[in-house]
Amino acid sequence: MALAGLSVREDAVGNIFGRWEGSEPDAPAVSTGSHIDAIPYSGKYDGVVGVLGAIEAINVLKRSGFKPKRSLEVIMFTSEEPTRYGISCLGSRLLAGSVSLVTALTQTADNANISFLDAAKSAGYAENEDFSSVFLDENSYSAFVELHIEQGPILENEGISIGIVTAIAAPASIKVDFGGNGGHAGAVLMPQRNDAGLAAAELALAVEKHVLESGSIDTVGTVGILEVHPGAINSIPSKSHVEIDTRDIDEKRRNMVIEKVHESAVSISQRRGVELLEFKIVNQDPPALSDESVIKAMESATQVLGLSHKKMISRAYHDSLFMARKAPMGMIFIPCYKGYSHKPEEYASPEDIANGVKVLALTLAKLSINS
Amino acid sequence: MALAGLSVREDAVGNIFGRWEGSEPDAPAVSTGSHIDAIPYSGKYDGVVGVLGAIEAINVLKRSGFKPKRSLEVIMFTSEEPTRYGISCLGSRLLAGSVSLVTALTQTADNANISFLDAAKSAGYAENEDFSSVFLDENSYSAFVELHIEQGPILENEGISIGIVTAIAAPASIKVDFGGNGGHAGAVLMPQRNDAGLAAAELALAVEKHVLESGSIDTVGTVGILEVHPGAINSIPSKSHVEIDTRDIDEKRRNMVIEKVHESAVSISQRRGVELLEFKIVNQDPPALSDESVIKAMESATQVLGLSHKKMISRAYHDSLFMARKAPMGMIFIPCYKGYSHKPEEYASPEDIANGVKVLALTLAKLSINS
Repeated sequence: MALAGLSVREDAVGNIFGRWEGSEPDAPAVSTGSHIDAIPYSGKYDGVVGVLGAIEAINVLKRSGFKPKRSLEVIMFTSEEPTRYGISCLGSRLLAGSVSLVTALTQTADNANISFLDAAKSAGYAENEDFSSVFLDENSYSAFVELHIEQGPILENEGISIGIVTAIAAPASIKVDFGGNGGHAGAVLMPQRNDAGLAAAELALAVEKHVLESGSIDTVGTVGILEVHPGAINSIPSKSHVEIDTRDIDEKRRNMVIEKVHESAVSISQRRGVELLEFKIVNQDPPALSDESVIKAMESATQVLGLSHKKMISRAYHDSLFMARKAPMGMIFIPCYKGYSHKPEEYASPEDIANGVKVLALTLAKLSINS
Repeated sequence: MALAGLSVREDAVGNIFGRWEGSEPDAPAVSTGSHIDAIPYSGKYDGVVGVLGAIEAINVLKRSGFKPKRSLEVIMFTSEEPTRYGISCLGSRLLAGSVSLVTALTQTADNANISFLDAAKSAGYAENEDFSSVFLDENSYSAFVELHIEQGPILENEGISIGIVTAIAAPASIKVDFGGNGGHAGAVLMPQRNDAGLAAAELALAVEKHVLESGSIDTVGTVGILEVHPGAINSIPSKSHVEIDTRDIDEKRRNMVIEKVHESAVSISQRRGVELLEFKIVNQDPPALSDESVIKAMESATQVLGLSHKKMISRAYHDSLFMARKAPMGMIFIPCYKGYSHKPEEYASPEDIANGVKVLALTLAKLSINS
């Protein structure tokens, strides 16, 4: 990987920073970047385009003879996907200075009961166990820009090259556990059952119902994880585990969905005589708005390049959601095949990626010389 | 393990036979036995009581000076639980002479795509790959008796020592796979979704509904396996897998449930725009009736021992279901704690096990001297 002659450093949680020193090295830098981790059976573009694209944007600027005023930094964020420890955007969340997350990380374990600290240590991180060293200073960055595939079908459908993100929808995630008596699938008659698997099935359908009831196309909710225990065909499930993701560009409306899902979990457990062992809101983040100054820089870049663009909302969340807490933020979207993401069919064409990199390069250049 | 001086042989699929030669070695023998395999997170009594109990019953008879006329055989059956290859009662099914099973076994693989033949070979079996060598001759046995925990609460609730099984409910198992487009949990709006996980959730609830509609307390149905793929909180399930177990003492009524579940699977897939990739009836066995001669021998044993007993139905299936195809069959049930089975809390008291072993010993003795 060409690191474009950047000076590289890594923080205690594995975020990697590559810096191109500007002529005003003490001024807050302009930063860009994304992540390269992925969910299982995922695609190859989500995140990766924003890391390799950022490095290439720096290369483009270097080749063009550009000299930055503010320094430019490329960030590769740790663990954007909530795959192993159920915490999304781990790297950027910590950079944004979450004290509660630092506490939570000392108590977090994966499904094999390996603690986060042990896993981080065995990967060569977390030497002093104090993740607050990761927190960004208030004036680290004058702006943050992320290049990313849209992960939705709008740009492709409308034949538009560049999406300029004005807001990122507010995500929340919930873990639910039900417990029942289980037993033998032949011997326990139906009236004696309290089937934890059926409680999970009902809750999954309740999530869909409450989301549809919101009345807004912007409300979404998903049960991406549904597990039953012990998981044998002739055994009534004695435990079930459900993980729910719900998002909206309207925080209040999304929180209403969470409340209704909670009510459903309670009433399902009561009606079925199943225990509601846990209903845990893992995170419930507020939405983020892009900054007008960054939006203007991105728009002007598309105009210089003669590329069509539209302003749009990001329904997926990104490291930008958290970087917005520390710096004026903006995001550049490029089209992707059929809007597919989080599956192997995910694809963005070389032309669209090149357009995105050019827009990013010009935006960085513009923000670098802004006073 | 005291093998009670029995001469031991093993067949090509791993069924193990211990024989106590009688004074009429050419007459069909009397057999007993059960299994020692278990589902994950199971108990320690299901099956095991009928294997160790059978060996102990032989010991009891030897100690008492009894001389068998018909030979007595203890059988430890291979793989009664359908855990790895989805086939229940593998050993006894083959003994009963299933040609279709022999064919199926050459095409069966587990979830890691390891073929049944490779697994059997690596365990030291299936040398010549011809499992029809396992089939029992028509006149191998004059009777088969199995000792087992009830796996239900009736004997314990009613304070009765011995259950005499008159019939075994007819089990069927079904595998269902749904497929959808999957996608990103934030970016794909609700109307564009075809969520394979929600299709599975609906089907699980439909199984419960159709079972309850049967109108009989004897109809049961369970979704013990429900898996969603890729299984990430922020990914819409693109595939789901459901395994259904349904049973009844009335074969027609049970088959009606299967038909309705199939209709539901089709209508759910159509309504949700999800593909019904597979609806496979893995097995659909007829019920088995105990033989009057064996029932009488068991009843007379309880009377000699002064133990309370009641005639009852086995709602769980057993190797006896298949042995009934080759010999007059009977089953002895003993009470178990709260009727729990297929979970770690499964328990039978030493007293109840001892009672069961005594009834088994006397029953074997009686059947051995029957002409």
